[in-house]
Amino acid sequence: MANSKSSTKPNSEGNNSREIVLLRWGHRPQRDVRLTSHVALVSRAFGAAGFILADAIDEHLKATVEKVTKSWGGNFRFEMGTSWKSFVSEWKSKGGVVVHLTIYGENIQTSDVLSRIRGSGKNVLLLVGSQKVPPEFYSAEVSDFNLAVGNQPHSECAAVAVFLDRFFEGKELSKGFENARIRVVPQVRGKQIKVKHGF
Amino acid sequence: MANSKSSTKPNSEGNNSREIVLLRWGHRPQRDVRLTSHVALVSRAFGAAGFILADAIDEHLKATVEKVTKSWGGNFRFEMGTSWKSFVSEWKSKGGVVVHLTIYGENIQTSDVLSRIRGSGKNVLLLVGSQKVPPEFYSAEVSDFNLAVGNQPHSECAAVAVFLDRFFEGKELSKGFENARIRVVPQVRGKQIKVKHGF
Repeated sequence: MANSKSSTKPNSEGNNSREIVLLRWGHRPQRDVRLTSHVALVSRAFGAAGFILADAIDEHLKATVEKVTKSWGGNFRFEMGTSWKSFVSEWKSKGGVVVHLTIYGENIQTSDVLSRIRGSGKNVLLLVGSQKVPPEFYSAEVSDFNLAVGNQPHSECAAVAVFLDRFFEGKELSKGFENARIRVVPQVRGKQIKVKHGF
Repeated sequence: MANSKSSTKPNSEGNNSREIVLLRWGHRPQRDVRLTSHVALVSRAFGAAGFILADAIDEHLKATVEKVTKSWGGNFRFEMGTSWKSFVSEWKSKGGVVVHLTIYGENIQTSDVLSRIRGSGKNVLLLVGSQKVPPEFYSAEVSDFNLAVGNQPHSECAAVAVFLDRFFEGKELSKGFENARIRVVPQVRGKQIKVKHGF
């Protein structure tokens, strides 16, 4: 293991091993591939357990994400083509909550929405749209919470990152990833990486 | 003014009116336009004062950012075509510091780099690459700090958002924007916006 000092279980500290999975809706292959790959990599880097590309197939995206996981470690789950309706319904039947990230929702800074999500004690499915989402995303049948990372237009990458950073209280940025081939050794100046051979 | 209760000066609370400006290097028009526009909108939404597109011209990007500022308010500065070298050198001559966001730098979570930046008491230029950056970006001649928002690959949108969220301690997400035509009224369910007429 490349970084034996760090926790090997994602986010096992301080959040009782609560699992967060991201579901991306409305992805348009080709047009959205770079943005969606950023959203997926952000999810991984900030401590989510997996990423679901709903109702779409994008082999290029899959290859990008799996290549990063293979090199940089961890057990990040990538899935595509899944129906969002079935996934949400299955998630809820297993006792998880659904948090829809939207500019129109309760503000993460000015409301108590984050503490209510934490207080639920449940696994969290983060629902992240790309194009305009169906109105039912806002309803109680789909989303337990509609959360806004600020009520200004910006970027789903940013919304996912800040939600996870706050949810995990920053600890996600210090954890190691199991079976990493490559890891960065942080430097004041320049670049240093360690590459593990023998894979 | 659409939101008269909030501070009208960006980030005037708690950070002594320190100004943060973002400089984007390595932008390729067309190929990068969506990602760079996300980076610019994230900068605005998370409290930066302006965005410099260095050594490139992209009218489509300019139109996107300026349209958002016109509708959603504030005095966000957008500039393009500026030489990064001249801008950095001028920024430093005015007493500002330069923070280079890079996966190879000091980790924002595990090091004291953020408190040293705060402790400098100076305005901050955030240097954000797109492609591989020139080696001199890491040098003391250019960057006072090399900062990593985690040492894993993810997204410059996320790095900018989390840096600003932590720098401003979250307060940026509650502030209003001057002269906004549109603003969101946060909701538990559904969407509500207020549109100001008469512009």
